[in-house]
Amino acid sequence: MSSRCNLRFLIPGLALLLGGVPSVLAVWPQPQQIRNSAERYSLSARAFLFKHADVSAVRSGCDVLDQAFTRYFTLIFPESGGGGTGGAHNRYFWTEADPFTVEVNVAEGPCDGYPAEGSIENYKLTVSPGQAVLTSVTVWGALRGLESLSQLVEQDDYGAYYINKTEIEDFPRFQFRGLLLDTSRHYLPLQAILKTLDAMAYSKLNVFHWHIVDDPSFPYQSRKYPDLSKKGAYHPFTHIYTQTDVRRVIEHARLRGIRVLAEFDSPGHTQSWGNGQPSLLTPCYRGDVPSGTYGPVNPILDSTYVFMANLLKEVTSVFPDSYIHLGGDEVDFSCWKSNPDIKAFMKKMGFGSDFTKLESFYIIVNISTMLNRSSVVWQDVFDYHEINRPRYVVEVWKWGCYLCEVRRVTKAGHRVLLSAPWYINHISYGQDWRNSYTVQPQNFSGTEEQKKLVIGGEVCMWGEYVDATNLSPRLWPRACAAAERLWSDEVQTSSVDQAFPRLTDFRCRLLRRGIQAEPLYVGHCKNEYQGI
Amino acid sequence: MSSRCNLRFLIPGLALLLGGVPSVLAVWPQPQQIRNSAERYSLSARAFLFKHADVSAVRSGCDVLDQAFTRYFTLIFPESGGGGTGGAHNRYFWTEADPFTVEVNVAEGPCDGYPAEGSIENYKLTVSPGQAVLTSVTVWGALRGLESLSQLVEQDDYGAYYINKTEIEDFPRFQFRGLLLDTSRHYLPLQAILKTLDAMAYSKLNVFHWHIVDDPSFPYQSRKYPDLSKKGAYHPFTHIYTQTDVRRVIEHARLRGIRVLAEFDSPGHTQSWGNGQPSLLTPCYRGDVPSGTYGPVNPILDSTYVFMANLLKEVTSVFPDSYIHLGGDEVDFSCWKSNPDIKAFMKKMGFGSDFTKLESFYIIVNISTMLNRSSVVWQDVFDYHEINRPRYVVEVWKWGCYLCEVRRVTKAGHRVLLSAPWYINHISYGQDWRNSYTVQPQNFSGTEEQKKLVIGGEVCMWGEYVDATNLSPRLWPRACAAAERLWSDEVQTSSVDQAFPRLTDFRCRLLRRGIQAEPLYVGHCKNEYQGI
Repeated sequence: MSSRCNLRFLIPGLALLLGGVPSVLAVWPQPQQIRNSAERYSLSARAFLFKHADVSAVRSGCDVLDQAFTRYFTLIFPESGGGGTGGAHNRYFWTEADPFTVEVNVAEGPCDGYPAEGSIENYKLTVSPGQAVLTSVTVWGALRGLESLSQLVEQDDYGAYYINKTEIEDFPRFQFRGLLLDTSRHYLPLQAILKTLDAMAYSKLNVFHWHIVDDPSFPYQSRKYPDLSKKGAYHPFTHIYTQTDVRRVIEHARLRGIRVLAEFDSPGHTQSWGNGQPSLLTPCYRGDVPSGTYGPVNPILDSTYVFMANLLKEVTSVFPDSYIHLGGDEVDFSCWKSNPDIKAFMKKMGFGSDFTKLESFYIIVNISTMLNRSSVVWQDVFDYHEINRPRYVVEVWKWGCYLCEVRRVTKAGHRVLLSAPWYINHISYGQDWRNSYTVQPQNFSGTEEQKKLVIGGEVCMWGEYVDATNLSPRLWPRACAAAERLWSDEVQTSSVDQAFPRLTDFRCRLLRRGIQAEPLYVGHCKNEYQGI
Repeated sequence: MSSRCNLRFLIPGLALLLGGVPSVLAVWPQPQQIRNSAERYSLSARAFLFKHADVSAVRSGCDVLDQAFTRYFTLIFPESGGGGTGGAHNRYFWTEADPFTVEVNVAEGPCDGYPAEGSIENYKLTVSPGQAVLTSVTVWGALRGLESLSQLVEQDDYGAYYINKTEIEDFPRFQFRGLLLDTSRHYLPLQAILKTLDAMAYSKLNVFHWHIVDDPSFPYQSRKYPDLSKKGAYHPFTHIYTQTDVRRVIEHARLRGIRVLAEFDSPGHTQSWGNGQPSLLTPCYRGDVPSGTYGPVNPILDSTYVFMANLLKEVTSVFPDSYIHLGGDEVDFSCWKSNPDIKAFMKKMGFGSDFTKLESFYIIVNISTMLNRSSVVWQDVFDYHEINRPRYVVEVWKWGCYLCEVRRVTKAGHRVLLSAPWYINHISYGQDWRNSYTVQPQNFSGTEEQKKLVIGGEVCMWGEYVDATNLSPRLWPRACAAAERLWSDEVQTSSVDQAFPRLTDFRCRLLRRGIQAEPLYVGHCKNEYQGI
């Protein structure tokens, strides 16, 4: 698959330079170690075989790998007829003498589990005459290796496939490489989510942060509280995620080694919850009388905690990941301040007029203790009151000196997710991916222990101005910049100018794979309008 | 067709407000006069008929209207099975007693011509029980009226179609309402262009400015000089516009009352021309020797003018519009300055060291070959030296005090096209359409005569960062803001806040029609994912 883009006119002489870059280097994100040579082997869809190594702990029947083989066959040979069946068929039958064999050797099972915190994604890949050998500890590592392998395959000017002699030894810099979609401000159809998961896998992103509900709408169809979506979604039938939809997302993600981190943000950002659960939100007052409007979740009622316990119990049974995101950001205290019952409660609890204590009481004392999960919270919760439970993960999202915040949070011993510099819903003219690329998540003064507490980061695509009409071109390839920052060695990938032709190349590959990825600059892709 | 969007959460109480706005007001761009009432008539695809008035100068067999009837039938009743044939069929057969009849009365023929400078687009539309009467001077006005009619039709919550009693008297504020696409920096497939023309018609934009060639690529396949695209396009077969392609664009545009203004920009922005026409560009020098690079078109060779005359002769035979855009912007003089032959020519001509005189010399010779056309040039040409020929149209594109420039150009007696505030390829976060909307093209100090010389303006979508992957959501609905500014009365449409719910509504309608128009803000459209 040749996805070389024409950049002749960008910088005089760049074509020459690009001609000199072996295209086999174009694996995105950049592997930790890659050695290749000009030695090149022809590939043919009619003589290409994935197989399990004899010593592999994982054999046929492992759906994660079986399906990956089918998928990657089509990705490697897009003209082979595509589709799972064709691919699977071709994998086992060939007409030429010796097939090129991809032997996959996974050290440990199982393969029916979920990717998780601490899943080992390391892999080694050796491409030599007639074969590629891929070894990994887990099936998740094998998936990463298959992705790299697929990106090594190029197509010459006559359409013939080839791969260069290559050795890769690779592992992620950070364990948590996330992407947030917001399905509340605009509903995203299931297909848009599944397609995003596909592109995440191409970029080796491994956590889908599903900001599923918020003020504008509640599309999650709860088993226990169906009124939440019935009355809180944009439309009770067409704009919801059923339990089946959610299972499809989780399974589609699992098969690609992607975790699904569900967020049920409270006590703020919950206006839509109030439609289906009327007593949940705080009645706001104007003077001595209720104004008829509602504020954040009411943190002083027992019924609130019964409801939240039930809802979160359901959520943790639906979403298997060991993390759950509890939100906690941007709570507007004005409604709480107006409500006489809240004020009485504040007095009784000795909170004075510090409403941050009331929020902490709600989130830390009550909500997170209900759960046998690692709770992720937005940095507001940490900023209000130091949290002592080590199971917290603090997501740093506020612009400004975000690394100062990372330093403070890690100094307090908490794990950190960084998203502040990766709010890529914020767009600007030109190559703004460069800003995402040059982020240095650990460039703060702190101990080695502190640095290790930075477990990764997230690209966030908030939905104020984004729905399925513009999601893909806004995400891709802009999210790829953070994907490389989170996977690759920082020193090796410090040059944004060196990244440019590689990302241009990768973007063409995304296009070929049917991802509506926008251009980085002037030029064209060889196969640009075949995939979409 | 109900395309009411849910804005509940945007501004408290806005839903109430929106509920109070009769949706029949949602014609975009706002007609000059519209009166409607709550009286509402049911419509059905099985009892709906377009027909020519007995007194109409245009009858069946006029392809512009015949095809428009078919198109608008499908746009009005998108669930009717769609497609031209189904629509045409339904137009003539119905099962219910009395069809709702749209009687079209056009005062003047012909209908086989092209929309042109000065084409009268005025129309009147009266919707009353059982019928709508549409009168216009020309078929182009009838097209505008059909568009408005189609936007008056709504769908209730049960899917039933209806239209309110309405009277519209409408005409455009400016005769020239353009949209520029750049097919050189990125090649745009024919379908992307045709789809853009569709959406232009929905917004009553009436000039497609085709910036067809530029530095990066030359996709226009010339009959006389086929090497230009063979050697200058990104790809000689897949990334070109054949003569057939160009004819399709012009015809698709004509049927929608849209002019096609071709731009062959020179003497700068011509790097790609040099590939297929080697002696055309100026050889740049480093010291006393040619550096191997090339600059703008070489304005001192007779062969240049022979080539340009031949090319422009072909272009004017291919593109029927009375306007041709000759470019003339951003000429980099450094190469000319380096070339000893150019310097000798400058001396001979008495130009001193003023290279703007050389550019003017070049442009004026070219223009003189365009005897029966109005030449459009970018403002640079005017800025260099005042031009005295009245057939010039100056396009004001430079940011800054663009109305100062409009004043200067009109004072010199030239017609003006304004595009400076509508370079909507420049994106920013949030609702940047508001800036486009508040432009006041005639808000400069000048005589009434000067104001009349502002013949319109253009939305420009330059292609540095835009190709078919992101064209539609970047264009729509952002370009609609300028479309209303160029069509509607400025006083009546001075409030951007009042425009917001109308544009939100119109964007939902675009979506329903299959235009991938991005959201203005949080919310949803009832039929948002059926059209795309």
